[in-house]
Amino acid sequence: MQQRPPRGRRPVGSGTREAIAAAARRQFGAQGFQKTSLRSIAAEAGVDPRLVVHFFGSKQKLFLSVVELPFRPELVFPAVIGDGGPGVGLRLAEFLLTMLDSPETRSVMIGILRAAASEEEAARLWRDMVTEQILLPLASRVARDRAELRAALVASQVVGLAMARHVVGVPPLAQTDQETLATALAPVLEYYLTGDLGDAASLMGGLRARVP
Amino acid sequence: MQQRPPRGRRPVGSGTREAIAAAARRQFGAQGFQKTSLRSIAAEAGVDPRLVVHFFGSKQKLFLSVVELPFRPELVFPAVIGDGGPGVGLRLAEFLLTMLDSPETRSVMIGILRAAASEEEAARLWRDMVTEQILLPLASRVARDRAELRAALVASQVVGLAMARHVVGVPPLAQTDQETLATALAPVLEYYLTGDLGDAASLMGGLRARVP
Repeated sequence: MQQRPPRGRRPVGSGTREAIAAAARRQFGAQGFQKTSLRSIAAEAGVDPRLVVHFFGSKQKLFLSVVELPFRPELVFPAVIGDGGPGVGLRLAEFLLTMLDSPETRSVMIGILRAAASEEEAARLWRDMVTEQILLPLASRVARDRAELRAALVASQVVGLAMARHVVGVPPLAQTDQETLATALAPVLEYYLTGDLGDAASLMGGLRARVP
Repeated sequence: MQQRPPRGRRPVGSGTREAIAAAARRQFGAQGFQKTSLRSIAAEAGVDPRLVVHFFGSKQKLFLSVVELPFRPELVFPAVIGDGGPGVGLRLAEFLLTMLDSPETRSVMIGILRAAASEEEAARLWRDMVTEQILLPLASRVARDRAELRAALVASQVVGLAMARHVVGVPPLAQTDQETLATALAPVLEYYLTGDLGDAASLMGGLRARVP
């Protein structure tokens, strides 16, 4: 990588970075992470591809710089989590599965996942984004002991479900309908958010409270 | 890719594929997936790099072709799963966390995960390997209703934990000790394997049986 690409087709001004970001956002959204190249983004922005590398480093990092979460956690969590009482697991499972089953939101979430898995620097960017925008807001809402660990356990199950169902396509998960999956996941998410993580008896007690 | 690389440094005979596979297995094992290149493997095997592409297609596919699971499911599952009775969740959680926390076995499992996340063809190979070598043997042991879905749900949680703890390094998960995590995961794995997936009351009942 060089500091000053000699043949940028566009002067390196304050608008260049934004032009690249806009082209990247459009192409990643329209055709996904895999089929988008630094070259095609540079062409749309009217710059030398090396300028894209200069500003953003790599395709993974460019993706994470321009991508926006398909939902606004601060707006969504109050409705989904509420006071964290009974039913929170099912509401969260239904919300997440809806996000993953809709092609538009899924392509963003899976693109983020692929980028994070393929490069360590991208993984670090992803971790900061997920921690600040999702895990900390979620943790501050569930507001019991070990709130961050609880949010991270939820994240681990959601990430694994997205990988198994949509990236790898593990046979039964890829074909199971949304309602069946939401029902199967609900007690797990509720346990991670509100159960006693160290004690199966407390998990039992927490669940007993909501069983007729 | 071309059918007959013109300048292979070694005659394309029956031993060539094996020589490449042996070099790949050694290098992936010694330095991991990321730092190993097709070029370095070809150099060790004494062949043109294009011959590696000819035989194996890509680094991801080569990795999945030569890698071996760090444990033999048919030997491990009888001890870990047993008859699937109470305690199976904790035994499985402890086994998996031990595999993931040991540097040697972790590097293989994380390498598999990265390869699967980065390329669709690699994901397909990974899916076939995990399904045949892990999920079906596991499903045939737990042997209740929806055995394959249960095994896949377990796989989703394990994959997500590996991603969050070891690939992305989500803060609390990356630092949480093995025993705490095993205790937190145990009821979930036990529920996926033996609980009633559609009914929180059955999850409660299943857990009540093992609480003093």
